[in-house]
Amino acid sequence: MAHFDDASILETTVESKRVFDGLILHIDHVNNRLPNGKLAAREVARHVGASAVVPVDGDGNVWLVKQFRAPIDQILLEVPAGKLDYKGEDRLEAAKRELKEETGLTAGEWTHLSDIVTTPGFSDELISLYLARDLSAGQSHPDDDEFLNVVKLPLNELVAMIARGQVTDAKTICAVLLAEKVVNG
Amino acid sequence: MAHFDDASILETTVESKRVFDGLILHIDHVNNRLPNGKLAAREVARHVGASAVVPVDGDGNVWLVKQFRAPIDQILLEVPAGKLDYKGEDRLEAAKRELKEETGLTAGEWTHLSDIVTTPGFSDELISLYLARDLSAGQSHPDDDEFLNVVKLPLNELVAMIARGQVTDAKTICAVLLAEKVVNG
Repeated sequence: MAHFDDASILETTVESKRVFDGLILHIDHVNNRLPNGKLAAREVARHVGASAVVPVDGDGNVWLVKQFRAPIDQILLEVPAGKLDYKGEDRLEAAKRELKEETGLTAGEWTHLSDIVTTPGFSDELISLYLARDLSAGQSHPDDDEFLNVVKLPLNELVAMIARGQVTDAKTICAVLLAEKVVNG
Repeated sequence: MAHFDDASILETTVESKRVFDGLILHIDHVNNRLPNGKLAAREVARHVGASAVVPVDGDGNVWLVKQFRAPIDQILLEVPAGKLDYKGEDRLEAAKRELKEETGLTAGEWTHLSDIVTTPGFSDELISLYLARDLSAGQSHPDDDEFLNVVKLPLNELVAMIARGQVTDAKTICAVLLAEKVVNG
């Protein structure tokens, strides 16, 4: 796509001001110079980032977690995932930690699937997606304020649920459909 | 999954307080009663929601947009998409509007692919995903502060780019991989 004129759509930041410091979100108001010379206000939520894992066992089952999500007031079916402990933490290490914490699993084979930005219109959250195979069971140890149920589903059944619109978590849809392409060739 | 005990992982909201009102984000601090009786603070960004469209033309090309995204300071390749004008707006109507605004296209055939929650850990944003076919070209009219380039790519080439990790926008990955299953059967 090199023939497209990226310069004609670039913005440059003139000013950035922190307007809110929260528990996990830090909001900046950014004043950007547009390609036409005018200024535009952009609202940006800074987030530490996260890793997520599709654990596929020897029987072709994906290990998932169900957990309550306060923002949508619902229990959601998701791949194991969690925030980085700090900005710049090794993302594979974070994936290994979250997999172990939430499911007790450790994995002998790790494949990086992709990195995704979840909401580039308003936040900088980036989630690294991994496929984990050659699994070994162990003891889970969720965080103190984390309650979840572990669920196992055959990969192909999970993909069919996604195609029917029965899975709504974006990182889970991305990770599972990418994992499917690796596992099923 | 009815045999899993959802009641054991439910939280109930004790108190919710608006702590920040921004341009597009409104942040609440929510105090939730955990399954063990303890209280936990949850930070929730309220967002109006959005619709996104995978427009596939008669030649099997997907029409995409490249646009600058301030939160990640990068130009991103995305399916046409945009925020609802107001909470509760008809999501298919919003999809039609955004497709027309960003690409000039109208479509004779619309298929709902899925609804996704982009960041259920910290926001309630829900994006409705549609496949649009039977396309007709027309005049685009982006918003005043919106600069974008329209790009056409064969669906199968776009899917291959996603599989190689060359597309990072989560809604685009979800929408295109779901559209692929419908288009390719």
